Amino acid sequence: MAEIDEMCRLDHVRASVLAELHEVLEGETLRAQRHGPHVQDLWRRTAQHIGGGKLMRPMLLLEVLDAFEAGGRGGAGDAVALRCAAALEILHYAFLLHDDVIDHDLVRRGDDNLVGALHRHGRAGGDDRASLHWARSAGILMGDLLLARAHQILARIDVPAPMRGELLDLLDHAVTESAAGEFLDVGLADGIIPPARREIDIMTRSKTAVYSVELPLAMACVLAGAGAGVRAALEDAGRCIGIAFQLQDDALSAFGTEHHHGKDPWSDFREGKQTRIMDAARATTSWPAVAELLGRDDLTDAEGTRLRGLLVDCGARDRIAEEIEALLDEARRILRDGPARIPGAVVEVIEQQMRRLEGRTR
Amino acid sequence: MAEIDEMCRLDHVRASVLAELHEVLEGETLRAQRHGPHVQDLWRRTAQHIGGGKLMRPMLLLEVLDAFEAGGRGGAGDAVALRCAAALEILHYAFLLHDDVIDHDLVRRGDDNLVGALHRHGRAGGDDRASLHWARSAGILMGDLLLARAHQILARIDVPAPMRGELLDLLDHAVTESAAGEFLDVGLADGIIPPARREIDIMTRSKTAVYSVELPLAMACVLAGAGAGVRAALEDAGRCIGIAFQLQDDALSAFGTEHHHGKDPWSDFREGKQTRIMDAARATTSWPAVAELLGRDDLTDAEGTRLRGLLVDCGARDRIAEEIEALLDEARRILRDGPARIPGAVVEVIEQQMRRLEGRTR
Repeated sequence: MAEIDEMCRLDHVRASVLAELHEVLEGETLRAQRHGPHVQDLWRRTAQHIGGGKLMRPMLLLEVLDAFEAGGRGGAGDAVALRCAAALEILHYAFLLHDDVIDHDLVRRGDDNLVGALHRHGRAGGDDRASLHWARSAGILMGDLLLARAHQILARIDVPAPMRGELLDLLDHAVTESAAGEFLDVGLADGIIPPARREIDIMTRSKTAVYSVELPLAMACVLAGAGAGVRAALEDAGRCIGIAFQLQDDALSAFGTEHHHGKDPWSDFREGKQTRIMDAARATTSWPAVAELLGRDDLTDAEGTRLRGLLVDCGARDRIAEEIEALLDEARRILRDGPARIPGAVVEVIEQQMRRLEGRTR
Repeated sequence: MAEIDEMCRLDHVRASVLAELHEVLEGETLRAQRHGPHVQDLWRRTAQHIGGGKLMRPMLLLEVLDAFEAGGRGGAGDAVALRCAAALEILHYAFLLHDDVIDHDLVRRGDDNLVGALHRHGRAGGDDRASLHWARSAGILMGDLLLARAHQILARIDVPAPMRGELLDLLDHAVTESAAGEFLDVGLADGIIPPARREIDIMTRSKTAVYSVELPLAMACVLAGAGAGVRAALEDAGRCIGIAFQLQDDALSAFGTEHHHGKDPWSDFREGKQTRIMDAARATTSWPAVAELLGRDDLTDAEGTRLRGLLVDCGARDRIAEEIEALLDEARRILRDGPARIPGAVVEVIEQQMRRLEGRTR
C-alpha cells in the first residue's frame, strides 16, 4: 500500500509540473494569435512534444525540495517551486531542440521529435529539402523562444532579490556549461578538435550533467535556504551523478538497441561521437579497427555490430561501467560521509534517483 | 566646428558601447578558461565579429535617452544605459548568428561572418562538409549563449524592480516578435506557408523592425521615466520606422549591388524570399515571369538581372519606395503632431536617424 501511495504521490507531482508547463505554453499560444495561425500551430505542436519524457529534472528539484521541507527548513512556496520546475523542463527542451537540429535527429524515443513532426507536415507539400530546412529552422527558433522563456521565468520569480540572483547564477552556469560541452562534442565528432582526454572530459562533464543533475539539486538548495556546506556537497554529488548519467547515456547509445533508446542504434557511431568509451578504446590495440569504422555515415548494420563487438572485447564497455559505479559510489560517499550534515530524507531521495539511474534502459 | 564636435561626441559614445561590449566578452572568455582553449577561441572570434556594424540599436537608445535627459527628465544613470545598450547589440548579434545559420550565409558586409570564419578555420583540416557542420553548430550555440547573456544583463540591471520588469517585458516582446517573424520568413521562402498578404505583413513588421527600432526607443522611454503617452507615441513611430527599415532592407537586397550590401546580390531571389516587393509584383501581369525565376538556387547573373528588371518594370520597386516614404511620413506625424508632447530634442534625434535611414545604401 505504501508503494501505491508513493506512486500516486509522484503521479500527482508530475501532473502538477505538466499543468504548469501547459499553462506557460497555453499563454504563449494565445499570445501568438497576433502572429497568425502558423505561429500558433508551432506553439501547439511544441506543447505536444515538451514534457513527454520522464520530467527527470523537475521531479528531482521538487522531490529534493520536498525532502528539505519535511525536515522543517521552510523554503520557497509551492508556486515558486513549480515555476522553477517548469523552467528546468523548458530549458531542457530548448537544449534538446538545438541538439536535434545539430545532430540532424528527427526521432526521439521512437517517435518523431518536433523537427521530425514539422518535416512530416511540411514535406506533404512535396519539397523534401525545403521542408527539412523549414523544420530545422523552426527548431532553432523555437529553441530560442524556450531558452528566452526559461530566463524570463527565473528573472521574475517571486522570491527575495538575493535568492532570485542565486537562481539566475545557477541558470547562467548551466547554460554556459551546456553550450560549451555541446560545442566540444560537435568539434570532436567533426574532427575539428583533436580528441584529447582533456576535451573529452570537459565535454562529458559539461554537456548534460550540469543542467540535468547539479542544477536541479542546487536550485533545491537555494529554494530551501540550505546552508553553504550542504549546497556544496549536493553540487559535488550532483556533478558525480550527472557525469555518470552522461556516461550511461553514451553506453546506452553504443550498446543499447533501437528498442531501448528509440533512435537509430548507430547514430553515435555514424556521427563519430568521441565519447569516453572511444577514449577508453583508444588506449587499446583494437583502436585502429575502431577508428576505421567510427564516423562512417554509411555504416552498415554489420559494421555497427562489429564496432560494438570491438568496444566490448577491448574492455572499453567494462571500463565505462566501472567508471559509472565509481562515480555513483563517490556521490554516495559525499552524501553520507562528507563533512556536511545533509538531512536523511534528502539523501534518501537522491539515492533513490541514483538507483533509478542504475536501472535505466533508455 | 559644431559638426566636428558632434562627430567626436558620437565617436565617444560609440567607443563607450564598444568598451562595454568588450568587457562582457572579455569576462566570458575568461570564464571559458575552464572549458579549455577551443571554447576560449570561440569567444575570442565572437568578440572580433560582434559590434562590427554601425551599432545602430545601442546608439539609438543612448541618443534618445540623452535627448530626454537634456530635457531634464532625469532617468537611469550612464552605467545602466550602457549595460542596456550592450544587451541590445548582443541580442542583435545573437539573432544575426541564427539568421546566418538558417540562411546558410557565410558572408556579411563583404567579409566572412563568424560562421564563415569558423568554416575557413575548420576546413583547413581538409573536410569541407564536417567543417561547415561544425561552424554552423557553433553559430547556433554561440547565438544561444548571447541570447542568454542579453537576458542575464537585463535581469540583473541595477534599477528599481518595476523598471527592471518593464525592461524584461520589452525584451520578451522583442524576442517573441523576432522569432515569429523569422519563422514566417523561412516558411514563406520554403513554400510551406502560402504567401498571403497577412503573413507577409506580420513577417515584415516582426522580424527586425521591433527589436531594431521599437525596442531601443521603448527602452529609452523606460530608462528616462517618460510618461505613458510619450512612450506609446515613440513605440508607434518606432514601429513605422522599423517597418520602413525592413522594407528598405528588402529593397537593398533586391536592387542593391554586391558592393552595396556586401553579400551575394541574388541571395534573396535564390532563397525565394517572399518580401513585400514580391507581394507587390504578385498583383501585376509580370508575376508569372517573376514566379518562374524566384527561388531558383542556381539563378544565373543574367536571370538575376532579368528578375530585378521585371520587379522594376512592373512597378514593385516604386510601390515599396512609396510605402517607405508613407511610413516615414506617418512617423514624423506621430512625433510632431500626435497628442503626446514629445521633447523637441527627442524628436530631432529620431528624425536624424530617419534621415540616415533614407540615405543608407547598405
